[in-house]
Amino acid sequence: MSAAVPIADPGDPRLDDFRDLMHADTRPDRRGIVIAEGVNVVERLARSSYRVRAVVGVEAKLTALAPVLHQLDAPVYEVDKWTLSEAVGFRVTRGVLAAADRPEPVPAESLLATGWRFAVLEQINDFENLGSIFRNCAAFGVDGVLLDPRCADPLYRRSVRVSMGHVFGVGFAVLPGRWPDSLELLRAVGVDLLAMTPRAEAVAIRSVVAPRSWAVLLGAEGPGLTEAALAAADQWVRIPMAAGVDSLNVATAGAVAFAQLTC
Amino acid sequence: MSAAVPIADPGDPRLDDFRDLMHADTRPDRRGIVIAEGVNVVERLARSSYRVRAVVGVEAKLTALAPVLHQLDAPVYEVDKWTLSEAVGFRVTRGVLAAADRPEPVPAESLLATGWRFAVLEQINDFENLGSIFRNCAAFGVDGVLLDPRCADPLYRRSVRVSMGHVFGVGFAVLPGRWPDSLELLRAVGVDLLAMTPRAEAVAIRSVVAPRSWAVLLGAEGPGLTEAALAAADQWVRIPMAAGVDSLNVATAGAVAFAQLTC
Repeated sequence: MSAAVPIADPGDPRLDDFRDLMHADTRPDRRGIVIAEGVNVVERLARSSYRVRAVVGVEAKLTALAPVLHQLDAPVYEVDKWTLSEAVGFRVTRGVLAAADRPEPVPAESLLATGWRFAVLEQINDFENLGSIFRNCAAFGVDGVLLDPRCADPLYRRSVRVSMGHVFGVGFAVLPGRWPDSLELLRAVGVDLLAMTPRAEAVAIRSVVAPRSWAVLLGAEGPGLTEAALAAADQWVRIPMAAGVDSLNVATAGAVAFAQLTC
Repeated sequence: MSAAVPIADPGDPRLDDFRDLMHADTRPDRRGIVIAEGVNVVERLARSSYRVRAVVGVEAKLTALAPVLHQLDAPVYEVDKWTLSEAVGFRVTRGVLAAADRPEPVPAESLLATGWRFAVLEQINDFENLGSIFRNCAAFGVDGVLLDPRCADPLYRRSVRVSMGHVFGVGFAVLPGRWPDSLELLRAVGVDLLAMTPRAEAVAIRSVVAPRSWAVLLGAEGPGLTEAALAAADQWVRIPMAAGVDSLNVATAGAVAFAQLTC
């Protein structure tokens, strides 16, 4: 970057990527833009393969990001906090935002070729759970996330934020074709499908010997995996829990499984 | 209970416990009342030792709760969803609420006498993290939670909700006196203090042989445990993580530790 360009007018068209952020995810004209908020998340975005369009922030945050912004081929705008809040439409507490182009979708086959440990998500619609799952995948070195077509979009603002920016580093792909038949794609390349379920017939996760290549299947909170997804799995795995507790949060269950399989 | 009493007027004084819920936690006159929302959480409240003051809900939700409400010594009010939303001050999506008296605080010594597996929290101020920790404690059979005096209140509405009502079942106590000297209370009764930290000198959690009685120490997200708390611990424990990932969410880290120690 060259020096940050000061902007004083919240209506400046150079801030258009960041306008009306509260509703940005649902505006059809905005589906091509991904937003990162806060120093850590902007840093992860800048270090990722995503093409950054612009960064806007208050002086202190831009200074904190200077080492990363210096290597960035995108304009950086310096604003005060009032200009920033007025432009985006709410009080921005994190002080720095970046906008990036949404990358081309990765085909599931390509993603599968990049590693051997995966998470497969069925109908995960909650953006916070989705973001947390990416964060947990990053923590435990899970190589990629495969989504059934009914999952929410991991690049929505809230998911990005809760993931701490790890959606930019952990690859993901939507499984093509009919779910759960599409799981055959994984089996075809030798990935063992471990379905998480609280059912008593499932094997306790501590007793599972991690196969060379595995995918942990996680279903929506509440109902859990569908019968069809369970039937398509190679093995049912459960986390032993105290009596009377329905289940863990889906992202937490994933973390416990990843920890047991990788640590 | 006798039959549910219908109420049509949102201003009815019998609904006063549920009024202006959005701000209930910060109103000094409301600190004595605990609110449960949704069928599962109200059911956990009703089955707990808490004294329920009243239940209010729409017909379908009261019907779902009938077996539990029949054994409850508290009035049950049936309302339509508009009356309910108007009384509480926002659109209630869960359709049923219960109010209970805040129980007398449990002395830490008494809580420690009820079990041998504990979580100790330092400066956990985020209500969602706090609630999630209780949910995870319930899942893994952790017997109680000890809080340093700067932690948030587990009985706040958002914490109750995220805990799925498990704050009513997992006992908690505030550690008295100066933190972290107060950890001596645990050591005095033979509880081993395991401090969670990402530091390299810490022992990987999978290598820890669970002591007969243990407490997992968890610090605030971001800074983690203070030096003083780390110094007061018997052992430092870490979750092996991929390079470049700062840390897991504190509730998730707790779950991974509980799973390794109990499963």
